[in-house]
Amino acid sequence: MAKRIAIIGSTGSIGQQALDVALRLPEHLRVVALAAGSNVQMLAEQAMRTHPAVVGVANEALAPQLAALLKGSGIAVVAGAEADALACLPDVDLVLVASVGLAGLWPALAAVRAGKTLAVANKESIVAAGDLLMAEAAQHGAKVVPVDSEHSAIFQCLEGESKQTISRIILTASGGAFRDRPAHELEHVSPQEALAHPTWRMGKKITVDSATLMNKGLEVIEAHRLFGVPVHRIHAVLHQQSIIHSLVEFADGSVKAQLGLPDMRMPIAYALTYPNRLEWGADRLDLASVGALTFERLDLARYPCLALAYQAAEEGGTAPTVLSAADEVAVTAFLDGRLSFARISDVIQRVLDMHRREECRDLDAVRRADAWARRAAASLVAEAPWEH
Amino acid sequence: MAKRIAIIGSTGSIGQQALDVALRLPEHLRVVALAAGSNVQMLAEQAMRTHPAVVGVANEALAPQLAALLKGSGIAVVAGAEADALACLPDVDLVLVASVGLAGLWPALAAVRAGKTLAVANKESIVAAGDLLMAEAAQHGAKVVPVDSEHSAIFQCLEGESKQTISRIILTASGGAFRDRPAHELEHVSPQEALAHPTWRMGKKITVDSATLMNKGLEVIEAHRLFGVPVHRIHAVLHQQSIIHSLVEFADGSVKAQLGLPDMRMPIAYALTYPNRLEWGADRLDLASVGALTFERLDLARYPCLALAYQAAEEGGTAPTVLSAADEVAVTAFLDGRLSFARISDVIQRVLDMHRREECRDLDAVRRADAWARRAAASLVAEAPWEH
Repeated sequence: MAKRIAIIGSTGSIGQQALDVALRLPEHLRVVALAAGSNVQMLAEQAMRTHPAVVGVANEALAPQLAALLKGSGIAVVAGAEADALACLPDVDLVLVASVGLAGLWPALAAVRAGKTLAVANKESIVAAGDLLMAEAAQHGAKVVPVDSEHSAIFQCLEGESKQTISRIILTASGGAFRDRPAHELEHVSPQEALAHPTWRMGKKITVDSATLMNKGLEVIEAHRLFGVPVHRIHAVLHQQSIIHSLVEFADGSVKAQLGLPDMRMPIAYALTYPNRLEWGADRLDLASVGALTFERLDLARYPCLALAYQAAEEGGTAPTVLSAADEVAVTAFLDGRLSFARISDVIQRVLDMHRREECRDLDAVRRADAWARRAAASLVAEAPWEH
Repeated sequence: MAKRIAIIGSTGSIGQQALDVALRLPEHLRVVALAAGSNVQMLAEQAMRTHPAVVGVANEALAPQLAALLKGSGIAVVAGAEADALACLPDVDLVLVASVGLAGLWPALAAVRAGKTLAVANKESIVAAGDLLMAEAAQHGAKVVPVDSEHSAIFQCLEGESKQTISRIILTASGGAFRDRPAHELEHVSPQEALAHPTWRMGKKITVDSATLMNKGLEVIEAHRLFGVPVHRIHAVLHQQSIIHSLVEFADGSVKAQLGLPDMRMPIAYALTYPNRLEWGADRLDLASVGALTFERLDLARYPCLALAYQAAEEGGTAPTVLSAADEVAVTAFLDGRLSFARISDVIQRVLDMHRREECRDLDAVRRADAWARRAAASLVAEAPWEH
């Protein structure tokens, strides 16, 4: 019987690629619900191709337009909070949360509380509230399968292994768009330049986070939350080819790695079909064609965002929440031309410095820290003088 | 409770390294039996360090000398067939068969028939009679854990995975002592040169087999037998650093690899402690220090022994038995200075050409094919003209 899936955030980069995978495996995956923030045109097209029972749009004002586009299709339309609630429809087996930012937290929590398998591509929700999410998943017997290529790699390396034997997690980092640019040139790079990622096709926010290496920093925190490994045992290494997606070193010195061509559909397909592995038409890795896989130490001085993420990870509590929220505001400002690339880390650092750490006991603490950090970051961005 | 282990072939390279591992994990591994072919001096020293209940020497004439060396120690001494029988002592949990050549087959079979976990470092027995060995292991509920670094890597990559999802096995090959020498120079290389392996510390026969790449060919056959994967799905790639020990590609295009510094104690420790992983003091892999992992296609024209192994593997039946036996004779002749390096493959090819393939139904068929191939190879070596 086909697995019934709901995709929250279907019009983003991960959502689109997930639909591509689902359409390649029609006997194994059936799309029963799709939700997006506001791109109703694409959402309607996706619905016509996959015939879900229901589609949802977060922006309620766009619901009539979506309903008009789907008129006569027999596909139900919901909006607002009901769109998030598609994550806990009774006839859904797996929920892919592929939205960007903390907005992904609510459907992710709803999915695990309903005992669904959660394929989570939304790293902010794990960074900000991963302990809560994992605790709820354990309580409700829900599986959480990461979609990030790095965490999918770690997850795959840990299959059949005991977590007690993990010695180190080694995240690989491509180095992002500016890995070959001298540090002093980074002050004046444009959003267009930052969006030219050398190996991965991804959404805008995560591509900028790759250039600052905040993405790797968030992944350190994410790995800490998902796999319960202490922060000091989570390392990162520069690996330009993005072929080894991450590695796990065990107590006996043995290291396992997961490899593949840089194609997000691979970890997406793994998460959607887990615990099976199905042939979906992936291009095959040919190591002799690749020739060499290279590794370099990461210079934290060159990547202040990564250093800040380690600092927030060690601090714990609401510090990662604040880090993630400040980053979201700063990156948005950079993409809008309101903040220079080099100032992204300055904003985050100043917000972290102002922050009073709290324990992350419940969702209210997460919400408060997130909202406070956004306000603080926004006022820093607005305040000037932020030359650019 | 410590696992009770017997080591058959304790004075060889693998046996010595296994004892080193066992002595590093005294709370987890207890040596209760040791056996060797003829090096009674080393065997007695090993016995004094590890205090087994019994030691065995295959060469019966040396039993009195061994008994004299161990006088007053309380350690029992056995000889001849009884030394092999140490593999089925009742108070043994795991048997490591580390002897070289087809002699390792009998204790390996005895171990699995007695339901012991078999850690098998003896590739000839798997090549020559792997189907029988695996069938007996399945029938008696015995686990077989490979010790070869490549097969240990594959075994580790397959933990938690379904064998039905294997798409390809990719064995890595260092290329051996002569990987950087022009092919026309290989005619006149000496045994000393062939024994200078660039990355691995191993026994003599296997080091020569690494230089001819027969070792990789035997490993193709071994992987076919151990993991039930068709020969055409087993590939080899040149990987000079010997850091990635082998890889498995799955149906979904995802590839898993096992890595580590080139130290045979790592796969030995894995096999001895399986299904646990214990800290035994391994040096840690630092990818940034390694810098680059390189991969090149293997040129079968340069490595005729590898091509012969693929041919024998596809032929099946007694062909791999004959290949392995002819190789053992030819390599011994090379090491003794009676055959040139370049003629090793000629001897094997001629023996394979003369061979009439039979099904490998029982041990008699294996024994007959093995004995025939040894006679055929020996007479080819003796016949001349084999210039060297």
